[in-house]
Amino acid sequence: MLCLKVPTDAAWAEQALRDVDAVLADHAHCEMKAASNALSLATRHPGDAEVARALTDLAREEIEHFQRVLALLVERHVALGPPPVDAYASELRRAVHELPREGTEGAPLVDRLLVGALIEARSCERFKLLAEATAARPEHAAAHALWTDLLASEARHYRTFVDLAARAAGGDRRGVLGRLDRLAQAEGAIVLALARESAGASRATMHG
Amino acid sequence: MLCLKVPTDAAWAEQALRDVDAVLADHAHCEMKAASNALSLATRHPGDAEVARALTDLAREEIEHFQRVLALLVERHVALGPPPVDAYASELRRAVHELPREGTEGAPLVDRLLVGALIEARSCERFKLLAEATAARPEHAAAHALWTDLLASEARHYRTFVDLAARAAGGDRRGVLGRLDRLAQAEGAIVLALARESAGASRATMHG
Repeated sequence: MLCLKVPTDAAWAEQALRDVDAVLADHAHCEMKAASNALSLATRHPGDAEVARALTDLAREEIEHFQRVLALLVERHVALGPPPVDAYASELRRAVHELPREGTEGAPLVDRLLVGALIEARSCERFKLLAEATAARPEHAAAHALWTDLLASEARHYRTFVDLAARAAGGDRRGVLGRLDRLAQAEGAIVLALARESAGASRATMHG
Repeated sequence: MLCLKVPTDAAWAEQALRDVDAVLADHAHCEMKAASNALSLATRHPGDAEVARALTDLAREEIEHFQRVLALLVERHVALGPPPVDAYASELRRAVHELPREGTEGAPLVDRLLVGALIEARSCERFKLLAEATAARPEHAAAHALWTDLLASEARHYRTFVDLAARAAGGDRRGVLGRLDRLAQAEGAIVLALARESAGASRATMHG
């Protein structure tokens, strides 16, 4: 799906549904981190107004998603706890840092945008798994509706990040797609490693 | 105005109008910092969903304001540079940290909310000065409209921050208002010191 090299294990969605509250809380924090990250990118690279505009549009949308997840948590009488450690995102940032740089496609802004693209791609894949796993389960109707809506947004955000990365690389789309492909290889290895670590756990995280 | 103890010097608006581009760029960064700060507060203190909801509403609105200022900068063919050092906000955070704590009204979340309230109050006052100074100057019509709109939002945000601080202090509104009053004294001293430093400068910042 999208640029992903390694599909999520089919058991992940069932593991996630064992504790829907936990996966929703993790998801809420993911939306918040995505919003903060988009604002941070726009602040650090303010020179291109079109990039700043696109990133702040994205941040607004992520905040709206956070609010939707928060409303669902309130309905379920679940208090959102502090943000969990996000091994997936930090491993992904480490991986892009270690990828050999070949030109403008490896500039820091381009790399941060590609990390954003991959996170959106993986979120999209996972929302699809969650949506499919809950399609015929009326007890999960509200979460099902949320996940179904959001998977389309995540796919759109993925494309926005790739477009912005190509723009930030001075239009070198081919170079950027090559780097995304190499980063996607690393991302697949990260996902496999995290899945091995969390196998048998009583709950799942969005990217664990 | 609002809780402020020291009015801004009348010369400030004229100084600001000498370089409208500079004051707009500084303003854009203020909106972005306000949005990021609101998200950071919501992330660190997620337990109360109503607080998280109010802070993320605020962040969305600050992002919209950022986008309005950015659009005006684009119209004026001004590229937004990197964020300037914000001596006002950092001095204000130092000041609240040094205020003796008397109870729950001095908890870290309450203090950050009160800092937010004061920043909004000062922004509101400054937008009012800018709006008044440009009322009869058609060459500043677009900026005048922006500042007129935003001063009302800042006043509303001020009240939101005070209400959230009272809520975060377990309803001790009186204690919180007392602390806000003492912090406003410190804020007045900061504003006077910054005004002395920037006297005679060719441009002004929103909080300098």
